[in-house]
Amino acid sequence: MKITVIGTGSFGTSLAMVLVDNGHDVHIYGRNSAVVDEINEQHTNVNYLKDVSIPEAVKAVSNLEDSISHAEIIVLAVPVKAMRQVTREVHAHLKAMHKKVLLVHVAKGLELDTHLRVSEIISEETDDETVQDICVLSGPSHAEEVARRAPTTVSAASIGSDGAKVIQDVFMTQYFRVYHNDDLTGVEIGGALKNIIALAIGVLHGLNFGDNAKAAIITRGLQEIARLGTRMGANPLTFLGLTGMGDLIVTATSMHSRNYRCGIMLAEGRSVEEAQQEMGMVVEGVNTTRAAYELATQYEVEMPITKVLYQYLFEDISQEEAFYALMMREKTGETDDLKEALQQQYKEWTRE
Amino acid sequence: MKITVIGTGSFGTSLAMVLVDNGHDVHIYGRNSAVVDEINEQHTNVNYLKDVSIPEAVKAVSNLEDSISHAEIIVLAVPVKAMRQVTREVHAHLKAMHKKVLLVHVAKGLELDTHLRVSEIISEETDDETVQDICVLSGPSHAEEVARRAPTTVSAASIGSDGAKVIQDVFMTQYFRVYHNDDLTGVEIGGALKNIIALAIGVLHGLNFGDNAKAAIITRGLQEIARLGTRMGANPLTFLGLTGMGDLIVTATSMHSRNYRCGIMLAEGRSVEEAQQEMGMVVEGVNTTRAAYELATQYEVEMPITKVLYQYLFEDISQEEAFYALMMREKTGETDDLKEALQQQYKEWTRE
Repeated sequence: MKITVIGTGSFGTSLAMVLVDNGHDVHIYGRNSAVVDEINEQHTNVNYLKDVSIPEAVKAVSNLEDSISHAEIIVLAVPVKAMRQVTREVHAHLKAMHKKVLLVHVAKGLELDTHLRVSEIISEETDDETVQDICVLSGPSHAEEVARRAPTTVSAASIGSDGAKVIQDVFMTQYFRVYHNDDLTGVEIGGALKNIIALAIGVLHGLNFGDNAKAAIITRGLQEIARLGTRMGANPLTFLGLTGMGDLIVTATSMHSRNYRCGIMLAEGRSVEEAQQEMGMVVEGVNTTRAAYELATQYEVEMPITKVLYQYLFEDISQEEAFYALMMREKTGETDDLKEALQQQYKEWTRE
Repeated sequence: MKITVIGTGSFGTSLAMVLVDNGHDVHIYGRNSAVVDEINEQHTNVNYLKDVSIPEAVKAVSNLEDSISHAEIIVLAVPVKAMRQVTREVHAHLKAMHKKVLLVHVAKGLELDTHLRVSEIISEETDDETVQDICVLSGPSHAEEVARRAPTTVSAASIGSDGAKVIQDVFMTQYFRVYHNDDLTGVEIGGALKNIIALAIGVLHGLNFGDNAKAAIITRGLQEIARLGTRMGANPLTFLGLTGMGDLIVTATSMHSRNYRCGIMLAEGRSVEEAQQEMGMVVEGVNTTRAAYELATQYEVEMPITKVLYQYLFEDISQEEAFYALMMREKTGETDDLKEALQQQYKEWTRE
């Protein structure tokens, strides 16, 4: 198929490689003409993927209209904060061309102020005349490993019933396994909120907490993600899967993770701005912490880790005090809160 | 209180330190008189805990009868394969002394052939005249970190209703947090079976699989543990807690973990015997893999990771073939199997 990836970051580039490996005709659009030239001439993207050789069949373009004209499927691989504007531009071009495509996004976060999931942002900025379906592809998938063709598994979900299945076929290779999941909300919430926990674990690492403490916070972190997600309509079992526990583990225990590395830099005393600048990449967890904190207030859900990280990022509290308090916090039962969510879920299953 | 820890391995020694920090009168029993002398004279246990200084208040003894005579609470910190024999000896001494104690074990595994959980082994070898209650203490707790007083959280469960609460009070310190859990079966199954997954992840690491693949296998690993555990009577939610997901993460992602390190050695071509000898410690995951494989057959539960590891350890299959097959395996829904377990659980809640 004819596919355009919008965004020449690490994940966009690695997905273009997967699609070329699968025999598709792939364009990758980037605003930065130096990166576009580098991909076309050197077949590398060294700022985002070190020591990776990009197949010559991946064609980079710097004209958005041309890239959209090429595509039957468009993969939106841009940060959450750019998603609304990029989608608006894509939609305008599609409208002018009287063209309809399948949209897939791979962003992990929530929009500031609106608190919308990414598929909701895209939905607001498009219509039935330009878009067949809106999908998400998410899971434990460091771009560095995907680009090295290391075995990776992800989930695909969509607003309509068919989009995710098309995407599954389009991306599935020997090393990149795509599973279908019908819980779009759960898949997007899991992918977004795990970045909060990864950031928190990075801070704990920087403060010299050990693996015992980190495992405890990762465990409780998944529980608070599931609590909020379930209140927002997700199936609690999704958080036990690839896009929940799986992505949380890979993000909170690996130096590949930019959110984890950002947390370490914060603990070492750098500001959020300094850390992001030094890494040269967007750290989605920062904005997502603010959005999730506000959502937790709105839905009246207890999210102690998110709250501590919010206070640490946006208010003036001592990090040692905050994070030790997190470990030492008194609790009653370990899983009481999820009981209610699962009971609710059971009622839905039995209604089916 | 007067407490005796049986076993001078890394975890037994670190727990004796926690108990002394908490003001208890602590003896630690070891068969090896060189280790006993080292603890009493050098206040170290260098073979098990490098660079750790043991408080002088920890008194090591090499006479089992004396150590039992001292105790109101006995902590059994010996490998699973020694548990039956040690318990038998402890029981005989208690009987002769007309003495009754609270027993706590911290072993993570299942008995070969009988497939019994550790509290069941202890239960078989004791009676109401010698034992008030049988408890387990389990969770993400590398001994090396506990001995450095790094923040750690664990769960306590017991056969009777009071034992776990006593144990919670006895062990709880500022840095060692103990939570009560009423699902003894789930706590013991989670602690035992996570060693299988840690061993498998070690092999994957040794075969140069990346973090994406490891996260996928850890995620599926927890699901297969939960499947078997639920069939054996555990509450599926326990596997989302400290003794399930928490302990699995710490064991499968940390070089502190002997099962993980053993897996790496196996992938490098060493035999199980060579790996255990080189480490000088018991690797519980090896025997537990056999026990769990047999249990899965008995309960007719699908456990693909356990099965592959069993074939790799005890039969003659190529490791690359086996572990790639594991990653590439076709699946349908991600969490279908747990649905049934949770529905069953719901029925029990609504009966309450």
